[in-house]
Amino acid sequence: MTTQEILKQAKEAKTTLMLAAAADRNNALVKMAEALIKPEHTGKILEASRLDLEAAKGVISDVMLDRLLLNTERIQAMTDGILEVVQLEDPVGKVISETVRPNGMIIRKTAVPMGLIAIIYESRPNVTSDAAALAIKSGNACVLRGGREAWRTCYAIVEAMRTGLAAAGLPEAAVSLIEDTTRESAKELMTAEGYVDLLIPRGGKGLIRTCVEQATVPCIQTGTGICHIYVDRAADLEMAVRIVSNAKTSRPSVCNAAEVCLVHREIAGSFLPMLRQELCDRRMEAGLPPVELRLDGKAASVIPGTPAGEEDFDTEFLDYIMAVKVTDSLEEAAAHINAHSTGHSEAVVTEDTEAAARFTAAVDSAAVYVNVSTRFTDGGEFGLGCEMGISTQKLHARGPMGLAELCTYKYIIEGNGQIR
Amino acid sequence: MTTQEILKQAKEAKTTLMLAAAADRNNALVKMAEALIKPEHTGKILEASRLDLEAAKGVISDVMLDRLLLNTERIQAMTDGILEVVQLEDPVGKVISETVRPNGMIIRKTAVPMGLIAIIYESRPNVTSDAAALAIKSGNACVLRGGREAWRTCYAIVEAMRTGLAAAGLPEAAVSLIEDTTRESAKELMTAEGYVDLLIPRGGKGLIRTCVEQATVPCIQTGTGICHIYVDRAADLEMAVRIVSNAKTSRPSVCNAAEVCLVHREIAGSFLPMLRQELCDRRMEAGLPPVELRLDGKAASVIPGTPAGEEDFDTEFLDYIMAVKVTDSLEEAAAHINAHSTGHSEAVVTEDTEAAARFTAAVDSAAVYVNVSTRFTDGGEFGLGCEMGISTQKLHARGPMGLAELCTYKYIIEGNGQIR
Repeated sequence: MTTQEILKQAKEAKTTLMLAAAADRNNALVKMAEALIKPEHTGKILEASRLDLEAAKGVISDVMLDRLLLNTERIQAMTDGILEVVQLEDPVGKVISETVRPNGMIIRKTAVPMGLIAIIYESRPNVTSDAAALAIKSGNACVLRGGREAWRTCYAIVEAMRTGLAAAGLPEAAVSLIEDTTRESAKELMTAEGYVDLLIPRGGKGLIRTCVEQATVPCIQTGTGICHIYVDRAADLEMAVRIVSNAKTSRPSVCNAAEVCLVHREIAGSFLPMLRQELCDRRMEAGLPPVELRLDGKAASVIPGTPAGEEDFDTEFLDYIMAVKVTDSLEEAAAHINAHSTGHSEAVVTEDTEAAARFTAAVDSAAVYVNVSTRFTDGGEFGLGCEMGISTQKLHARGPMGLAELCTYKYIIEGNGQIR
Repeated sequence: MTTQEILKQAKEAKTTLMLAAAADRNNALVKMAEALIKPEHTGKILEASRLDLEAAKGVISDVMLDRLLLNTERIQAMTDGILEVVQLEDPVGKVISETVRPNGMIIRKTAVPMGLIAIIYESRPNVTSDAAALAIKSGNACVLRGGREAWRTCYAIVEAMRTGLAAAGLPEAAVSLIEDTTRESAKELMTAEGYVDLLIPRGGKGLIRTCVEQATVPCIQTGTGICHIYVDRAADLEMAVRIVSNAKTSRPSVCNAAEVCLVHREIAGSFLPMLRQELCDRRMEAGLPPVELRLDGKAASVIPGTPAGEEDFDTEFLDYIMAVKVTDSLEEAAAHINAHSTGHSEAVVTEDTEAAARFTAAVDSAAVYVNVSTRFTDGGEFGLGCEMGISTQKLHARGPMGLAELCTYKYIIEGNGQIR
């Protein structure tokens, strides 16, 4: 089917979804989850994965190949993921606020589904079931556009989930996969006014950039994270080392990993050697990859490391690399962050509560931490139970997007003949 | 100054505004309000208005000329408007939700200013002070781009307000007027990434369209309203006449005025003659302009009127014209609305609570009324105390945008060394 035809069917399906009761949506999710682990579907998914992998070998890196791979364990994890979403509180119909006006009319601001959500994503095929589950739970239809390398796998997953939707009496088109994997179909989704109520691009910088520039439908920027940790002069230095080490090394390839460490000059002399020992020496002793420290001039006068170039303070390394800069004050650190951050997550380490308050007020990012690792910016860790992505924009949703962020609201006003 | 220079200064000013205490922002607003009615400023504003009017005569319509005109009363009204904003609750720093996670970290979702808001508006110079007041109250800096015909007046208003900002110790650039009134400057604002945190276009369809297509900064669609009233078979017909009449004729040129009346076929025979009598005969008897009814085939078989063309159901008349259509069911009416509405405001008139519930669930617009006129979609009438515009999109804000909608939020997370 053409992208236009798919959008048309999905738009029809959205009307049913938006009106479906919570019990019906949950029932559909259970049947979608069960379908994935039925032998006939699992077989097709594994076969599709095998073909995708074969075609991708030599074309993409080994790390990417691993992200592409599905096995029965990963399919079971997808099923479990859907069943977890079933357990979450229903976001639809929640009365956000209620006012009775002097003329007697009652205004209820009520959470309702967005309608049709389009998700453009790259590589990992399990996003297919994650995204579909969150969309259906929140009363939305979705059109999914996966990466070209995973297309067969995504298609098999969607086919399985659609049998679940049908078994539950909901329209199959509520979960639709775009068949055209060229750039053209992404462009069509970005400009599908009257069809797409919300576009969520999940992927690299290039994809996000294209969406920001070309989308005429409402769009949420997700993902890229140049996260900072500022070690204040009043920091507990041991805690600072633990936090920076965790934020940098526990999973360097994710967006909430720290890329830059800012250090107050008064404690640079004592802190930087401790940091270097933890991130470099201890890790090498333990047979782990050491972190390459890219140092500004002042940091380089304290510890050895690679001299930092300008671009090192504007790079999402996603690797065992960290830029380090010594600052004269908390204000200088906050200004540096506001100038160089992607607005994702930043942390201050300090025992001075007044300094912490100045930092959290001045830093203009989605999540601002005091004495906590940036690695907690995540829907699950925030208690949202799930996540459709992490917004780095200020409009609508900021930080982890859970079910509530996949809804909009409408005002429902009841009266008895009020006129103005 | 060039638009770029103005944006740069406004961006610097925003940092101060975002950190300013409520008392300081309110103090600045009082001084801005006072400045407008100081003889020196009032004199300059009146002189500027006179020059603008003179230049616009013959170029724009008399209605538009009237909207352009400022006199001492209107300047006093602008001052009063600012002082009303001072009285509103401070939206900044409000804790929207607070969670303590199992690991002990406390997550506070906290309302914070957007940063720098750009407003592109047409004609009415009083928008200048309204918009500036709402921006400053909510801790935002603003850049204003008024219509070319009102530029001198807007400039004089901004100059006056800036003396108020300076007297309160806040940066003058927090309220900035774009000096270039060509399309080029609007385009610059739409693409001012890294400067403009939120763009609000207020004006006609053409302006909104251009913003949707060209903006790469976050943007909120406001305004256009093709509002519907559906008269159900279980309607109190007298009430329905009052509501339709009010929604159509009390102020036909505003966006919350009704443009289309949908009527259930079972009551069309009794209702349509009543409607025609009220909107046409009685108004003519009273020397008021009658409403031209543009009727679909079924309505035309009941009452006389103009035959409706297809486009009449997709037109914001903003005039004494109403399209009328007879539908077979509430569902048909809801489907018609969802296909033809701009998503602003719709109403059902019915005594059947079950039918009312089906209507409010099915209709996907910002405000959905039961037995109330659509004319209440307004920040003041909703109890928000003010309004920056009425959003017809689903992302971020829907319906009237008050101070809360000019804020975003950030997560502030406190802990004592949590790592993951």
